[in-house]
Amino acid sequence: MLDKPDYKQIIKEIEVELKSIVSEGKVANYIPELAKVDPNKFAFHISSIDGENYGFGDLDEKFSIQSIAKVFSLTLAYKLNGEDIWKRVGVEPSGNPFNSLIQIEQENGIPRNPLINSGALVISDILYDTLSNPKVDLLNFIREITDNHDIEYNIKVANSEKKTGFRNSALINLMRSFGNINSDINDILDFYFHLCSVEMTVKELSKAFLLYTNHGKLLTNDKEIITSTMAKRINAIMHSCGFYDEAGEFSFKVGLPGKSGVGGGIAAIYPGKYSVAVWSPKLNSKGNSYLGMKALQLLTAKTKRSIF
Amino acid sequence: MLDKPDYKQIIKEIEVELKSIVSEGKVANYIPELAKVDPNKFAFHISSIDGENYGFGDLDEKFSIQSIAKVFSLTLAYKLNGEDIWKRVGVEPSGNPFNSLIQIEQENGIPRNPLINSGALVISDILYDTLSNPKVDLLNFIREITDNHDIEYNIKVANSEKKTGFRNSALINLMRSFGNINSDINDILDFYFHLCSVEMTVKELSKAFLLYTNHGKLLTNDKEIITSTMAKRINAIMHSCGFYDEAGEFSFKVGLPGKSGVGGGIAAIYPGKYSVAVWSPKLNSKGNSYLGMKALQLLTAKTKRSIF
Amino acid sequence: MLDKPDYKQIIKEIEVELKSIVSEGKVANYIPELAKVDPNKFAFHISSIDGENYGFGDLDEKFSIQSIAKVFSLTLAYKLNGEDIWKRVGVEPSGNPFNSLIQIEQENGIPRNPLINSGALVISDILYDTLSNPKVDLLNFIREITDNHDIEYNIKVANSEKKTGFRNSALINLMRSFGNINSDINDILDFYFHLCSVEMTVKELSKAFLLYTNHGKLLTNDKEIITSTMAKRINAIMHSCGFYDEAGEFSFKVGLPGKSGVGGGIAAIYPGKYSVAVWSPKLNSKGNSYLGMKALQLLTAKTKRSIF
Amino acid sequence: MLDKPDYKQIIKEIEVELKSIVSEGKVANYIPELAKVDPNKFAFHISSIDGENYGFGDLDEKFSIQSIAKVFSLTLAYKLNGEDIWKRVGVEPSGNPFNSLIQIEQENGIPRNPLINSGALVISDILYDTLSNPKVDLLNFIREITDNHDIEYNIKVANSEKKTGFRNSALINLMRSFGNINSDINDILDFYFHLCSVEMTVKELSKAFLLYTNHGKLLTNDKEIITSTMAKRINAIMHSCGFYDEAGEFSFKVGLPGKSGVGGGIAAIYPGKYSVAVWSPKLNSKGNSYLGMKALQLLTAKTKRSIF
Repeated sequence: MLDKPDYKQIIKEIEVELKSIVSEGKVANYIPELAKVDPNKFAFHISSIDGENYGFGDLDEKFSIQSIAKVFSLTLAYKLNGEDIWKRVGVEPSGNPFNSLIQIEQENGIPRNPLINSGALVISDILYDTLSNPKVDLLNFIREITDNHDIEYNIKVANSEKKTGFRNSALINLMRSFGNINSDINDILDFYFHLCSVEMTVKELSKAFLLYTNHGKLLTNDKEIITSTMAKRINAIMHSCGFYDEAGEFSFKVGLPGKSGVGGGIAAIYPGKYSVAVWSPKLNSKGNSYLGMKALQLLTAKTKRSIF
Repeated sequence: MLDKPDYKQIIKEIEVELKSIVSEGKVANYIPELAKVDPNKFAFHISSIDGENYGFGDLDEKFSIQSIAKVFSLTLAYKLNGEDIWKRVGVEPSGNPFNSLIQIEQENGIPRNPLINSGALVISDILYDTLSNPKVDLLNFIREITDNHDIEYNIKVANSEKKTGFRNSALINLMRSFGNINSDINDILDFYFHLCSVEMTVKELSKAFLLYTNHGKLLTNDKEIITSTMAKRINAIMHSCGFYDEAGEFSFKVGLPGKSGVGGGIAAIYPGKYSVAVWSPKLNSKGNSYLGMKALQLLTAKTKRSIF
Repeated sequence: MLDKPDYKQIIKEIEVELKSIVSEGKVANYIPELAKVDPNKFAFHISSIDGENYGFGDLDEKFSIQSIAKVFSLTLAYKLNGEDIWKRVGVEPSGNPFNSLIQIEQENGIPRNPLINSGALVISDILYDTLSNPKVDLLNFIREITDNHDIEYNIKVANSEKKTGFRNSALINLMRSFGNINSDINDILDFYFHLCSVEMTVKELSKAFLLYTNHGKLLTNDKEIITSTMAKRINAIMHSCGFYDEAGEFSFKVGLPGKSGVGGGIAAIYPGKYSVAVWSPKLNSKGNSYLGMKALQLLTAKTKRSIF
Repeated sequence: MLDKPDYKQIIKEIEVELKSIVSEGKVANYIPELAKVDPNKFAFHISSIDGENYGFGDLDEKFSIQSIAKVFSLTLAYKLNGEDIWKRVGVEPSGNPFNSLIQIEQENGIPRNPLINSGALVISDILYDTLSNPKVDLLNFIREITDNHDIEYNIKVANSEKKTGFRNSALINLMRSFGNINSDINDILDFYFHLCSVEMTVKELSKAFLLYTNHGKLLTNDKEIITSTMAKRINAIMHSCGFYDEAGEFSFKVGLPGKSGVGGGIAAIYPGKYSVAVWSPKLNSKGNSYLGMKALQLLTAKTKRSIF
């Protein structure tokens, strides 16, 4: 077995090597509020299960985690409703863009997985039914696993998405026509856009993902948030479905379960070892952070270990 | 970190528990020669990287490994041609049945990955161009990594597939129309059907897959067959694409990279720990061994560890 | 050339023969208000360009013409905006169900033709932009070509559709995401559901369709509503696209341009000869009136002439 | 009713007007032998049911009628096998390119209609089963309806297609996998490629199509080749499906049933009035003759009549 990697040294090397890479990506512009972000922001942070923490760049700057938050809503819905959620959403990669309606129409309103937009909307509908105070309860859950009461929705971003979210509106209406949405469509969209507007720093994000590294328990107090089987399954879904139609490529080049967002963030984990978060707003053609992918590729190459 | 599992004890428990599960699957009948197999055959074998070997059932009976052999042809093509092979085949899950033509037509003749039929046909075409004596050289390669000169093609099975392989014929002609097949179509089909006809016991199969457990080196003599990066990438592809449109389900329930075949075999690995092979001819509706999936699910549940 | 058919005699024969045919269809139930209609209603009416009028059944009963009204809105939009409308909607059969979203996603938000739901929504958006008082102006136009100021929207039906029209809502949101809808989505849906709620008797409907029989001029006063080229083109579109994914079958068996609605109505024309309307609420599996199709098949068989 | 048009004068006008139109099309290059044709060839010929014949251009030059011949094989198969043929092929427009495999896979091997490649292959299979000497009998049938024993296959063209016909080979293998092809695949492909290689002049072609103008009877001797119902139905299919995924556009702009071929030919008819053939090898992006479409558009505009 390999020795434990020297994370501190490796992070330094990554910082140096990334300087020579020019990002070819573009900032997402379909959400007007997101298009305002400085495209040259960059931050990288790793949190090991042994309590080591290293990072560089804009470590203390909040950014819009967008779809990464879908992992948190999935976790809460799974925790509260158990295996029943899989009656309404699958666990297979979609092989299609994140906002495609085609499979929803062909597969009777059942989304392929909970991390594409359609699936996250169904999870939102499930949570909306389950929680007494959906927006507050969800935010409190995210605060608990991050151990940080400072986490907030960005109302401006949520509203910006609401104004331009026609594709999501199409998706939820289509699923409703198949009977896979129960609550009022506008309520669910509002809830969903709030979820996507959550802001974190890379420090906070890597800390939050330690839950998945640590098999479902909080590292700080050993509290079991979800069972180890649930954690394992969420990790498997992140691995199969966390990067839109580039999940295979991420698995091939990086080899870690993770989730990206159009805000330019990526969170990933090595089960039992570490979690890592990176932020760089310029996206590649598949909607994943260009430099973020490169940084994580360097990480698993330099640590000489991935889950494979 | 968890203690090392007691494989011997766990295998015994799996043997007992499987007896109470009635297979709901059906033997594949589209290849006449395969339809003749006894549906109640069963074998399970695990090979640890420390040299432990345990199993039960029809351990010494050869069966048709079918699509599992695609991992071997991919390995040889990758070894000989390096990253160039990815110009002609992708690394993404297909989200479609294993023999679908739809994506090939929509994506200009480039198969989604090398483990679906279309992708394996392209890999066969690459090998046919590269090898001086394709059928002999490929068999010798498989014999080398299995450390067993007893491995053979089953000519009857190869011929049986040739007579009924209209779907594969459609796939290769379609890819040829896009310029992604170079050699004579009948030669490639003949080569491909031979590949799929390879026969092994579960003992031999789990031994052969130790190559992927052991990061590309043979365990017997430490010879590097492929680099550790190549091994990692093949494992990632097996994980994303090894179970047709049930890859997500396998990842979700089992959590190991692997590959199934319509002969009822499944091979899977835990990188750095063990490889495992199981054989039960009755298939579920997705074309994967019904009891094989159950057995592997028990294995990762009982060992309390998967890659996630 | 054949003699002019004896319409009166032929209609009598059709009446007799239809009595021996048991409708295998089912009343549309996705619009609750429509599901209340008596399934055994039947009416048939023919209006020749020479002023002959024959019919039988529930001739004076109003029914919901539903999608047949899309021909009227197309006519008005074409009249007011000319060939510009074809930048936003095509003239090809869709080969897909009437409410499918798949082609909209694949073809950048441009509907295949103006007679499927998506295309009629775009036409509604065009009219909404063009008319000063959309609902009133459209109704007045329909009244003019029917020469009957008695035509009304059925507000109950319009509201019933609004409550359950999730699929149409999905379609319009999807097209909006591609920039092919300009006005407020709820306004357009309201306008569209009113259009579909128009009620007529078969007498009124066959009279209204004389406009298309008569190359764009009103028969009563020779006023040109649209040019003969426009009339010819609308007829061509009705023929290619008027019966959802059964257009070929209708052309094959009947051989007239026409349009059906889920209320069980069908209107069809023989250019230069006659127009015909039929109503029978039970629909076949493609959404077209079961007995209506049979009646029109008898008509062209007995008159020994169709456009082919 | 309009007076009978002065065809002679109209043809002269078309000849003049076409001179000012520059063809934007390209000669088909996927069949090497066809790519050799002079792109500037042009011929136009009309045959009225009253025995009038007018034309201009390369009237006596044979060209490869390609897919137009599918109308003749359909006619013979329908004549010999009656309505049974519709169990194996539909009558709906495909809404997809002529050589697409997607619908074949989605619709269990049943082609949408007999005028796309897949449907014509099924018709070829039916004829091959029915005829005692398929290639000879089919050619004799075409000779009979053309009243010309001079019609021949072009063996060079047939062989050229055979060498490059991978897409057709994919189609027929796919349909065979669904059980919708009975005879040997190579025999059917050979028969089909011969069919497509038939050569005619525009004079011969317009004469052959008088059969469909004349409701199934030969104009020369009044012999009934097919019933008037069959003729009507073939005309309906030509109208819905004769121009690949541009059938709606042709109906919209021209308004006649017809069939095009990649050799640059188009044949069309006005039932009861005339048939017309045009040849110009440069094709538009949908695979139909660029100038041929323009010429027919002028014809129905100038005669002020179409079937609509």
